[in-house]
Amino acid sequence: MTENTTEQTTPRARAGGRRVLIVHAHPDARSLTAALAGLAAEELRGAGHQVRTSDLYAMKWKATTDADDFPGWPRDDRLDVMGASHHAHDTGTLTADVREEQEKLRWADAVIIQFPLWWFSVPAILKGWLDRVFGADFAYGPGVRPYGGGELAGRRVLLSVTHGAGAPSVGPRGIHGPLSELLFPIQHGVLFFTGMSVLEPFTVPKAPELDEAGFRAVAAAYRARLAGLFTERPLPYRRLTEEDYTRELELRLGRERPGASGLGLHLA
Amino acid sequence: MTENTTEQTTPRARAGGRRVLIVHAHPDARSLTAALAGLAAEELRGAGHQVRTSDLYAMKWKATTDADDFPGWPRDDRLDVMGASHHAHDTGTLTADVREEQEKLRWADAVIIQFPLWWFSVPAILKGWLDRVFGADFAYGPGVRPYGGGELAGRRVLLSVTHGAGAPSVGPRGIHGPLSELLFPIQHGVLFFTGMSVLEPFTVPKAPELDEAGFRAVAAAYRARLAGLFTERPLPYRRLTEEDYTRELELRLGRERPGASGLGLHLA
Repeated sequence: MTENTTEQTTPRARAGGRRVLIVHAHPDARSLTAALAGLAAEELRGAGHQVRTSDLYAMKWKATTDADDFPGWPRDDRLDVMGASHHAHDTGTLTADVREEQEKLRWADAVIIQFPLWWFSVPAILKGWLDRVFGADFAYGPGVRPYGGGELAGRRVLLSVTHGAGAPSVGPRGIHGPLSELLFPIQHGVLFFTGMSVLEPFTVPKAPELDEAGFRAVAAAYRARLAGLFTERPLPYRRLTEEDYTRELELRLGRERPGASGLGLHLA
Repeated sequence: MTENTTEQTTPRARAGGRRVLIVHAHPDARSLTAALAGLAAEELRGAGHQVRTSDLYAMKWKATTDADDFPGWPRDDRLDVMGASHHAHDTGTLTADVREEQEKLRWADAVIIQFPLWWFSVPAILKGWLDRVFGADFAYGPGVRPYGGGELAGRRVLLSVTHGAGAPSVGPRGIHGPLSELLFPIQHGVLFFTGMSVLEPFTVPKAPELDEAGFRAVAAAYRARLAGLFTERPLPYRRLTEEDYTRELELRLGRERPGASGLGLHLA
């Protein structure tokens, strides 16, 4: 997919640091999102790591998946997105923007995704990055083993999320639902699905009310999390094994932690 | 926002039927998504209801929220999306596409949202419809009472979702998580937040494997659900009341149903 695939696809420690991709999404370069993305880049470079960024708004990232994404797919055929994505991968006809993001993900040892929580999920432009980049044969498909295997296995990923709600309202009894469960479709369903090791998210509640002192406290807390990017213990999502799951992909009875239910079943 | 707001904002029974908005999102007009949207429109019209549609791909819906959405917001000011959305509402400078969708939602007695599940959530173009249409002072904000009140209260909403997974894998013990919990951020966090009454979703598992006979069975099951659109009992999401929730928006201890936890706390 790129000229020097072998060189770029194996995550490993290197003398002098690791490789980090920072993806961020906010329409204003003066936003808290941009500030935290910049802080992370500076901090990680200072620690000797290599950093690349995908500033989705600055890149004018195409959010919407459509026929233009699959120039090799016959226009008269019904557009089956999974089939077209598979075909594009096989025939080397993925669009350049998608290829570049996939290459960055292969290159990275860790990925940070920085975004404001909009309607309890990612902004549309970031959903469009997930929809388009995490394509067939790269992130999912018959040849990709989900939840533990896959091409991206071994990479770490951290969601860094700013939001307007108070912390208790997205806590265990909060009306919006616990943030860990609101983010499950992304953290588990997308990222862990591809084999990545997902860290506890870094979250900034009541972001619109943040003053200078508040920002300094947030920055200090974020720096502490960044220092642990390669050593922190990931969320204990359960790998897909025959021991734990049936052929129908249901957790076998009795495998859960005592008292676990719902999404919590899939924590080992 | 529209000329005849009073006429259009009160959902009510009318002689000869109700008003239904069908929103759908798939890049191909020959898709299962388009077929189910078309089936619903035909069925509901046949039952005497009025139907309008928002075919997001055909409309080339702008998915990404950016400064172009807020032409009245001073370009030199940092773009605070909530503030800009509030300002646009107050000054009547919302873009025409957003105004039209808000007007359709006010017009409707029921809304159907038809989409393929991509990465356990809505396609980016549909997230962009939620991000941009469900703006300040319409769907959220200081003057809008969340979870039970709001301008859209009383309207019904049905998600109609096609996906590739087998039903058990998105069931109570399924590895992807129960579909009801994967959809919680949308069903509860967006739709119930605005006061809408959310119905049990209609779901089509293993959609890519559907043959002619399978489609006929799906169509029959969908018609049965559509027949109950105005009579089915909505999901029992818990309204935000002082009796149930603290000022920090946490469910008061002991208010939950016996054994409920996680997202299930918010079912009354």
